[in-house]
Amino acid sequence: MTASKHASTWTAPPRDTLRVGEGFSLADVDPRSTPGFDGDKQQGRLELDAGVPALSELQERLFAASTQGAPEAVLLVLQAMDTAGKGGIVKHVVGSVDPQGVHHYAFKKPTEEERSHDFLWRVEPHLPKPGQIGVFDRSHYEDVLIGRVRQLAEPDEIERRYGAINDFEAGIVASGTRIVKVMLQISADEQKERLADRLARPDKHWKYNPGDVDERELWPAYQDAYQVAFERTSTEAAPWFVVPADRKWYARIAVQRLLLDALEDIDPQWPAADYDIAVEQARLAAS
Amino acid sequence: MTASKHASTWTAPPRDTLRVGEGFSLADVDPRSTPGFDGDKQQGRLELDAGVPALSELQERLFAASTQGAPEAVLLVLQAMDTAGKGGIVKHVVGSVDPQGVHHYAFKKPTEEERSHDFLWRVEPHLPKPGQIGVFDRSHYEDVLIGRVRQLAEPDEIERRYGAINDFEAGIVASGTRIVKVMLQISADEQKERLADRLARPDKHWKYNPGDVDERELWPAYQDAYQVAFERTSTEAAPWFVVPADRKWYARIAVQRLLLDALEDIDPQWPAADYDIAVEQARLAAS
Repeated sequence: MTASKHASTWTAPPRDTLRVGEGFSLADVDPRSTPGFDGDKQQGRLELDAGVPALSELQERLFAASTQGAPEAVLLVLQAMDTAGKGGIVKHVVGSVDPQGVHHYAFKKPTEEERSHDFLWRVEPHLPKPGQIGVFDRSHYEDVLIGRVRQLAEPDEIERRYGAINDFEAGIVASGTRIVKVMLQISADEQKERLADRLARPDKHWKYNPGDVDERELWPAYQDAYQVAFERTSTEAAPWFVVPADRKWYARIAVQRLLLDALEDIDPQWPAADYDIAVEQARLAAS
Repeated sequence: MTASKHASTWTAPPRDTLRVGEGFSLADVDPRSTPGFDGDKQQGRLELDAGVPALSELQERLFAASTQGAPEAVLLVLQAMDTAGKGGIVKHVVGSVDPQGVHHYAFKKPTEEERSHDFLWRVEPHLPKPGQIGVFDRSHYEDVLIGRVRQLAEPDEIERRYGAINDFEAGIVASGTRIVKVMLQISADEQKERLADRLARPDKHWKYNPGDVDERELWPAYQDAYQVAFERTSTEAAPWFVVPADRKWYARIAVQRLLLDALEDIDPQWPAADYDIAVEQARLAAS
């Protein structure tokens, strides 16, 4: 028995079109584009809805398999400039599966204790356990992104981190966790509109902070830092995917598709009974 | 601005009809009843759907308020005999809110390390943080339920625990967390059907284990242990609610309503901007 696949309207799979490979240039990504998907917003919504049952069943299978010792898990790493839509991915894509099987963790500015350790020290405890879909809302990549842009560490240390990340992720993958690394790429203009919207709406004021404009002024430096991070850490074991995100609906179906691909690759199976079914049926009937 | 309340079809609120008060007797609860709700399964589904936007908005407000220091959180404690539908509550009720704001924890048989500490030691780290909805799938009550039924501790120690739980919960409530304690009450016949269903379906085999029938044979002892737990720990600060659960749809809308009540009591507000909006609009425009 394999998981049902819904009829997809993709013309080319995001795992191919969005993958960061040889010669990738972030500057060439059009944030308003919808690679591999010819439909509009309305068709995007249908696509998202159509993916829900499959994602939900695959997650349940993954969880079920883990109860009998299967080591597989999935880790979704989300990185982006502010307002790019990480939260919307969590709510509308990850939010469609059973919360029992999800481990979500938002990485904030490191605490003093965290800063006293190696930058990967605080990451380990939040890795998904077998059977879980883990979500990193920001991640260890902050330490080579804001870390690089704002020179929060020595250049040598920043250099060291790319290799350390690759080793760390290789270990995670070897232990059975598929890592899906996603960068949501919005345009500076789109960000401006979204920040203006936050400032215009009382129910969004809490999502804005003045530091957002400070970071915005470092836009080119961040784009450079992402480009370097992609070149150094888009590995065979854990490749990066850059998802155009000016259209929220596209970003959501693309990430949903990447998660579905990861789960379909694992192809988790319902565990066989480790007890005698007939015996148990008789015991139950007599109870 | 207060959270929108949807038009409800309840004739009497679950917080009144299902609450364990003076003279409560578990034996008098009819697991197939639907207290306070005249509708059928179809109307129950509509009620559940109608509650989703309100629950979702209240959760977001709760989370938003916590970002500016509001201490409030909600803790849903779920206890029940096997197959009563805890998982369905998590998936269909809690699953409708943003995973970012949910902390779900399933308590298993204590590890050796956990057993070397007081029974409440392992609970503390899983309490919801401000802004979160926490869900305990089983809980510290196992230590006065299976603990009592299977005599896993001395009678004196079991006795001590009721008071310890009340003190513990009073502290949690005082810190700003509303505790919603729910016991899903199914009938032994309904459990038999549900276990038979698990044995009949390959995609459900993993949910069955032979110990389920062993526990089932202790049904009256468990009912007694629940009755005692209710008498000793249904406090003003953290009352118990016994939810008839033979009809899954009813249990779900009842628990959803209890969560909505807890959140409406907190009445979390969107935080006011802690920056000058006009100044930020100008900075943004210039960026």
